[in-house]
Amino acid sequence: MEIRDNNDTIVAVASGVGGAIAIIRISGSSAIAICDTVIRCRSGKKLADAKGYTLHYADIVDGDGSVVDDVIVSLFRNPVSYTGEDMIELSCHASSYIQKEILNLLVNNGARVATAGEFTIRAFLAGKLDLSQAEAIADMISSTDKASHAMASNQMRGGYSMDFIDLRDKLVELISLIELELDFSEEDVEFVDRTALLNILDQIISKVDTLKSTFSLGNALKDGIAVAIVGSPNAGKSTLLNALLKDDRAMVSDIAGTTRDVIEESLILNDVRYRFLDTAGIRATDDALEQMGIQRTFSTIERAQVVVLMIDSATCILDKDHICYVKTLIDALDVHEGQQLVLVFNKLDSLTYLELKAIDTLACTLADNGYSIVSMSAKQGDGIDCLRDVLVDLVDTSKLYSGCTIVSNARHYDALNSAFTSLQIAKQSLESNISSDLLSQDLREVLHNLGLITGDITTDDILGSIFSKFCIGK
Amino acid sequence: MEIRDNNDTIVAVASGVGGAIAIIRISGSSAIAICDTVIRCRSGKKLADAKGYTLHYADIVDGDGSVVDDVIVSLFRNPVSYTGEDMIELSCHASSYIQKEILNLLVNNGARVATAGEFTIRAFLAGKLDLSQAEAIADMISSTDKASHAMASNQMRGGYSMDFIDLRDKLVELISLIELELDFSEEDVEFVDRTALLNILDQIISKVDTLKSTFSLGNALKDGIAVAIVGSPNAGKSTLLNALLKDDRAMVSDIAGTTRDVIEESLILNDVRYRFLDTAGIRATDDALEQMGIQRTFSTIERAQVVVLMIDSATCILDKDHICYVKTLIDALDVHEGQQLVLVFNKLDSLTYLELKAIDTLACTLADNGYSIVSMSAKQGDGIDCLRDVLVDLVDTSKLYSGCTIVSNARHYDALNSAFTSLQIAKQSLESNISSDLLSQDLREVLHNLGLITGDITTDDILGSIFSKFCIGK
Repeated sequence: MEIRDNNDTIVAVASGVGGAIAIIRISGSSAIAICDTVIRCRSGKKLADAKGYTLHYADIVDGDGSVVDDVIVSLFRNPVSYTGEDMIELSCHASSYIQKEILNLLVNNGARVATAGEFTIRAFLAGKLDLSQAEAIADMISSTDKASHAMASNQMRGGYSMDFIDLRDKLVELISLIELELDFSEEDVEFVDRTALLNILDQIISKVDTLKSTFSLGNALKDGIAVAIVGSPNAGKSTLLNALLKDDRAMVSDIAGTTRDVIEESLILNDVRYRFLDTAGIRATDDALEQMGIQRTFSTIERAQVVVLMIDSATCILDKDHICYVKTLIDALDVHEGQQLVLVFNKLDSLTYLELKAIDTLACTLADNGYSIVSMSAKQGDGIDCLRDVLVDLVDTSKLYSGCTIVSNARHYDALNSAFTSLQIAKQSLESNISSDLLSQDLREVLHNLGLITGDITTDDILGSIFSKFCIGK
Repeated sequence: MEIRDNNDTIVAVASGVGGAIAIIRISGSSAIAICDTVIRCRSGKKLADAKGYTLHYADIVDGDGSVVDDVIVSLFRNPVSYTGEDMIELSCHASSYIQKEILNLLVNNGARVATAGEFTIRAFLAGKLDLSQAEAIADMISSTDKASHAMASNQMRGGYSMDFIDLRDKLVELISLIELELDFSEEDVEFVDRTALLNILDQIISKVDTLKSTFSLGNALKDGIAVAIVGSPNAGKSTLLNALLKDDRAMVSDIAGTTRDVIEESLILNDVRYRFLDTAGIRATDDALEQMGIQRTFSTIERAQVVVLMIDSATCILDKDHICYVKTLIDALDVHEGQQLVLVFNKLDSLTYLELKAIDTLACTLADNGYSIVSMSAKQGDGIDCLRDVLVDLVDTSKLYSGCTIVSNARHYDALNSAFTSLQIAKQSLESNISSDLLSQDLREVLHNLGLITGDITTDDILGSIFSKFCIGK
């Protein structure tokens, strides 16, 4: 993809499918001239003569002189536009035929259909935003809840750059001191106390480490917290899912742009989206088909951030060694480090008074061993709120709304990891008193990795891969 | 629905689902004041101080002072706006969360969520467009091909009103002459020659009749021409469908807003959309399930404008009386008046030289009897173009692009039918020399019916039912 040399004029539909109004965007040095060939302003004016930041009521006229549609034209002039170029947005009737015709007309008059994210690439190349801000725009557009919105919003409004300006200043200070020593290397002077250097380096390491550590939260928030509901057949998984979704389904389904099939098992709790993943019941079986279902359950568990294990209390109570029964179930799940496990004792409604007491004792013992426990009758709707609270407590959103940067992008995480490795090497070098020469190289490597995030250092390949994930028209 | 007394401020998302940019519309006397409470223009200006037809870069700020999104604000001032009221359009990032939040903010500050078509109702009530024009907007938005677009476009740009101004002038002339006679009824004068009156009446009848007669075309074009492909099992229906769609599927699937499952059997030929309806093969059967399928075939035939009967030429040739074989197939279809029947002799590739000659003779005989015939090998792709040509010829689009009004709305058709009935009665009255009194009443009834179309005469019920078919945000 040739990214930097494209200064032709691009066009794309920027709005979604359906609706009453559609938006067609045009950007580039010929945007106004091309539009003036197909647009007749009702005022009789030419767009070429109009000021930026003005609106115009106009007809789109095709080659035969027939009116394709009447539109509202928004005119933006270089450099005060999203892309920094001359830009026009046409607000037309949202007919698929009209949109296609207008695109065709503009293309026939010299525009080119934009690739995904190409408007934002131009904004980035024009210096309107840094690379991490540009990436945040795509996250912003796909945000469906307050948490993912806040995360993208922080990043878009320069959260990263602020973090990095600070870091970079410290790094540059460090490098300049070390390289100064380099100039005087033959004289074997040390301008700075090694302990002070180590101190600064530790501060940077700590900062990068903090950012890195937000990734598991950021990554989870971005796509919604994946919650696998697992258990033996008939443990009440579907009843739980229905009980969880019942009250809140209406709430999430009034969000424009989410269709029922997409949210079917999604729920927003405390402004965070949880994606509940239904699984086949786990049991030993010879049935090949059922085995395949259970295999899928395990790969779902693998991908989940939270695993909710539904336990049929009545079955559990039948086992002489209750604890052993539960631990066997847990062991079968193969939950790995970093995943949260929640044990749900379901079907309390099927128990006698004494059985309830036994489950209670069992729950206390397990809680003392550090397990998250919820007792429940999904059928009666008891204990559902308690599970909700447990799920909400698993996610610490406090940093989110205080404007902290949360790393949610795998590319950024990789760059931070590389920076972290270089920092560790630099620290070792410093501690082992190796030459300033090598030390300086390690620190420049850190600068380079941080620069990858903000886009100070980029290649067309990186840009191409980043922006190909955008939607057309942005 | 209270329609006329609503002068509160309404808000709705006007753009579709997905995309990069979404449009939120606000209209009403408080639109600017409400927006000024949640919008901070980057210029520091208040919208209240800005001129109409200007754009503003701004932040949307919630109650806590946090920025929900940065938006472009389009400002329109009463009366120069779509609704005739003060109007604002916000162009925001197309996140479902952001759209919901902005809607909530505006509603919390005094706006109300608009009902379907409410912006256009206001445009109609403000006299910006007549009722038939308002209705054409909904057709315009749902147009997917050149023909349905041209039809809606003619109507939206005043086609109807132009037809009716002419008609009404003639009617009013007629009524005034007759009512003048009424004033002098005791003197038994006749101001106008009855033959001249009859002449004018005939002109009006002919005009209404012409409009009425366009309805079958208009109705078909609006939703696409329904083509049922029927025949015995294995007559080659699916092969035909695939051959028809093969080349053109790519063409129709690049239309924004049409997903593959919707166009699956749609095809645009000569700018008109044809909807091919797949049917179960017809044969005598005892199988209850198959009978149900065949039942559905017959109801599909019932709804189709065109019925394509696929005949397996090899089977046909086996029957001693070829004509009888074909006629039996035709009779079984129960094609009704107004439907077009096309006979396709398929599987030519399975015939010998002599059999081909026999089919050719048969085809000629049937063509002489007025049938549309296509000979084909769907498998080899031969004859497909010929069927396309036949389908194209069935639809006379000449009137469409010359700006003629094509009636496509059932409500208009009903009103025209009522007008036509009143006209016939008036004509009879005139011919039988009944009193000018009754004659005048009949003609006023005609005026009334035509007024229903343009909205000169409306009730809230009619408006409610018309605009409920609109999308929200228009």
